[in-house]
Amino acid sequence: MLKEYNPDFKATIKQGYAKQSFLALIGFELTEIELGHIEGRLVIEKKHQQQYGNLHGGLIATLADTVAGYAAFTAVPSGHGVVTGELKVSYFEPGYGEAVLAIGKVVRQGRKINFCEAELWAERGTDRVLIAKASATMITVQPQKTN
Amino acid sequence: MLKEYNPDFKATIKQGYAKQSFLALIGFELTEIELGHIEGRLVIEKKHQQQYGNLHGGLIATLADTVAGYAAFTAVPSGHGVVTGELKVSYFEPGYGEAVLAIGKVVRQGRKINFCEAELWAERGTDRVLIAKASATMITVQPQKTN
Amino acid sequence: MLKEYNPDFKATIKQGYAKQSFLALIGFELTEIELGHIEGRLVIEKKHQQQYGNLHGGLIATLADTVAGYAAFTAVPSGHGVVTGELKVSYFEPGYGEAVLAIGKVVRQGRKINFCEAELWAERGTDRVLIAKASATMITVQPQKTN
Amino acid sequence: MLKEYNPDFKATIKQGYAKQSFLALIGFELTEIELGHIEGRLVIEKKHQQQYGNLHGGLIATLADTVAGYAAFTAVPSGHGVVTGELKVSYFEPGYGEAVLAIGKVVRQGRKINFCEAELWAERGTDRVLIAKASATMITVQPQKTN
Repeated sequence: MLKEYNPDFKATIKQGYAKQSFLALIGFELTEIELGHIEGRLVIEKKHQQQYGNLHGGLIATLADTVAGYAAFTAVPSGHGVVTGELKVSYFEPGYGEAVLAIGKVVRQGRKINFCEAELWAERGTDRVLIAKASATMITVQPQKTN
Repeated sequence: MLKEYNPDFKATIKQGYAKQSFLALIGFELTEIELGHIEGRLVIEKKHQQQYGNLHGGLIATLADTVAGYAAFTAVPSGHGVVTGELKVSYFEPGYGEAVLAIGKVVRQGRKINFCEAELWAERGTDRVLIAKASATMITVQPQKTN
Repeated sequence: MLKEYNPDFKATIKQGYAKQSFLALIGFELTEIELGHIEGRLVIEKKHQQQYGNLHGGLIATLADTVAGYAAFTAVPSGHGVVTGELKVSYFEPGYGEAVLAIGKVVRQGRKINFCEAELWAERGTDRVLIAKASATMITVQPQKTN
Repeated sequence: MLKEYNPDFKATIKQGYAKQSFLALIGFELTEIELGHIEGRLVIEKKHQQQYGNLHGGLIATLADTVAGYAAFTAVPSGHGVVTGELKVSYFEPGYGEAVLAIGKVVRQGRKINFCEAELWAERGTDRVLIAKASATMITVQPQKTN
């Protein structure tokens, strides 16, 4: 259903990702890059936690923003970028476990406005628990106007 | 307009803040703690940036979540906590400058549901630029149920 | 995945629906009532439109709120109600066509907080176009506290 | 702080408003039209209510969308329109009283993306109660592309 405008999106994402200082700080890795679909994984460490020993809500928002934004990026023309217009994250369960799986997808691809969603799953032993869900407005921009 | 239920909220916040591993990782400091009103400041470093050299949207969401959540916390009864139900962040301008000032406040104090807002201002020389605004549903919880 | 607490939810919804003056005014009918899943349909008329001849965004929000709220209602204990805590609607396409199909579902059932989503589809000839998507925090309340 | 691009915005809004079938159906009147600031008032009637005798959440969303959208419209160039990208409404109190006052304002004016907020106040005798607050992304469009 999505139109592919940029055949090189995988390589472009991998190059750009290496420059993401904040994602390096937290240690988030992309594990799947497909048209309109991004997955990533974070091994949970003490540094990701708030005072109760669960993942900080801002960390969860960071993963959601990242996979939703990259999902949008796979679907914009070559040479264009995306910036987050707005992001809403709903929190369902405390964020604990061995790791978090973040899945981002494009629900509606537009010329300027892309609507994306993200799911955050905590891996607890053999279980996966949906701990948060997000929706975002991702705005297509020219390279020189990128956020 | 807000009712103060916990006269010790300042001390409680300062104690809890020391256990916030994620906030220590990013280096965010609270600078003002009043009933229904929280301010904090982040000196911008390379580690906070995305690939274009601006603040990562997730970092901005983290500051918004933190000041909104603590603003709610000042207004709940002693022994209670707050967890984020949902957070929406709208991004206006690229996040660059010397520092970010985050301001959180309670707009509506409820028994279980508190509505809070946050503003994020970039300090650029003598200017302050509103780079993002957020709204959040903060849920009052018993200590043992905290997120 | 959802737990059924109230075996009479269908009858209760049908009775309550008859008292929804605003929904009678706009002419929205429920067509399917299942646990955690509600569908309804609105035949588009001139009275539903804004100045450009498309559905008013508020009308679309009304349908989203209604099906999301009733989806939550199917999943709360007997004698309880739900009120909308917050609702976010994202608009994708102009709202025109013969009718609008509204689908609401429960994504996360909680004791107090239920996270629901809604989709709005315009029927245009044999096509269905996703014109909007919504997410909502639906709060379980005791009958006497209902909104 | 806002730039005025269209000196005729008042006249244009008044003309366009007359074609808003849905707003005529519900009986909402604009009472103030200033640059970046719109107010309107709805006298509460039975037809606006849900099953508990309070304003339907969708009706409240309609007022929020309308004043936020018109606030954005006052701040776009002549010949341009605005469509709602997304709207989030947070509900604080049951909607009852004699009337509802809706106030919309532009928080951030952009070339394409305008961030607006709305407040909904119930008039109850001599009291005014904040019953809901909303934020919205309003997108500037060329006339032929209007929603």
